[in-house]
Amino acid sequence: MSRQSNRATDSKKMNSELFTLTYGALVTQLCKDYENDEEVNKQLDKMGYNIGVRLIEDFLARSSIGRCQDFRETADVIAKVAFKMYLGITPSVTNWSPAGDEFSLILESNPLVDFVELPDNHSTLIYSNLLCGILRGALEMVQMAVDVRFAQDTLRGDNVTEIRMRFIKRIEENIPAGDE
Amino acid sequence: MSRQSNRATDSKKMNSELFTLTYGALVTQLCKDYENDEEVNKQLDKMGYNIGVRLIEDFLARSSIGRCQDFRETADVIAKVAFKMYLGITPSVTNWSPAGDEFSLILESNPLVDFVELPDNHSTLIYSNLLCGILRGALEMVQMAVDVRFAQDTLRGDNVTEIRMRFIKRIEENIPAGDE
Repeated sequence: MSRQSNRATDSKKMNSELFTLTYGALVTQLCKDYENDEEVNKQLDKMGYNIGVRLIEDFLARSSIGRCQDFRETADVIAKVAFKMYLGITPSVTNWSPAGDEFSLILESNPLVDFVELPDNHSTLIYSNLLCGILRGALEMVQMAVDVRFAQDTLRGDNVTEIRMRFIKRIEENIPAGDE
Repeated sequence: MSRQSNRATDSKKMNSELFTLTYGALVTQLCKDYENDEEVNKQLDKMGYNIGVRLIEDFLARSSIGRCQDFRETADVIAKVAFKMYLGITPSVTNWSPAGDEFSLILESNPLVDFVELPDNHSTLIYSNLLCGILRGALEMVQMAVDVRFAQDTLRGDNVTEIRMRFIKRIEENIPAGDE
């Protein structure tokens, strides 16, 4: 499969419910396909990575945002531009590490889980793990190796949903973006 | 999984690209899971049905639309309200049968296929078949049995994408809507 054209001009705005339910169908299918939650979590992260690697091109075209000066600027762009564009929400950026190499995105609401309750037999499922993969894949395409994981999740009983992001290193070699 | 609340007031508007790529991941997964395109098509229809059965409740709450007087009104509501709301597009309603029991939705563009080309070994895949299932499931919840299928698909070389809808019957018994 390949990108057909630069589509920066013809984006469609849609309500999130169809996406939410379709995402639910995807997770349900993976829970059928794989033996345990850990494998499903891995698969979601991997799928997300592949999506992020492609979505970044659309994002850069649509946002006209250039290279970020530092990880703080990256954090702001992710929260205020990317999440807003693709999920319709703006997480807050918080809990910076003293060294400035780690922060958290706090999601007041998470569109992916709008209709969802985890069944008891999937207590270790990281339901929205696709998001971590997307962030990891997209950032890799702009030469940033970043560790991304859910630190808290309302689906699992936490008060908020928190995605923790840790800067690992700048990737020096130029990985060609675009078609795989 | 169950609906948590009436969410008519807090819908998120999102660009369609993340949905498009996530839907692509779902179809790719099904192509791995099932032996042939026919099985994948069936599975997409079935998943869509389950989504439609749930999405109709959200749709009725959000649109404040009451019972349609006839199939022509149903067609208009689907094209102008539902497609607009959940996919950001407005298909045209056309090709009515003389008896008024069949029509076509013509999609000028289909957000589901924005980044997609079918590989040669999936020439019989009805890539967007989820949509047919959704329409079938949603209409069944408002007591209409309708046959829904793709008549043309740009992905398969046709000039337009055409969804053909045929009214079968009004369902007399009241099927309880909502949680399955």
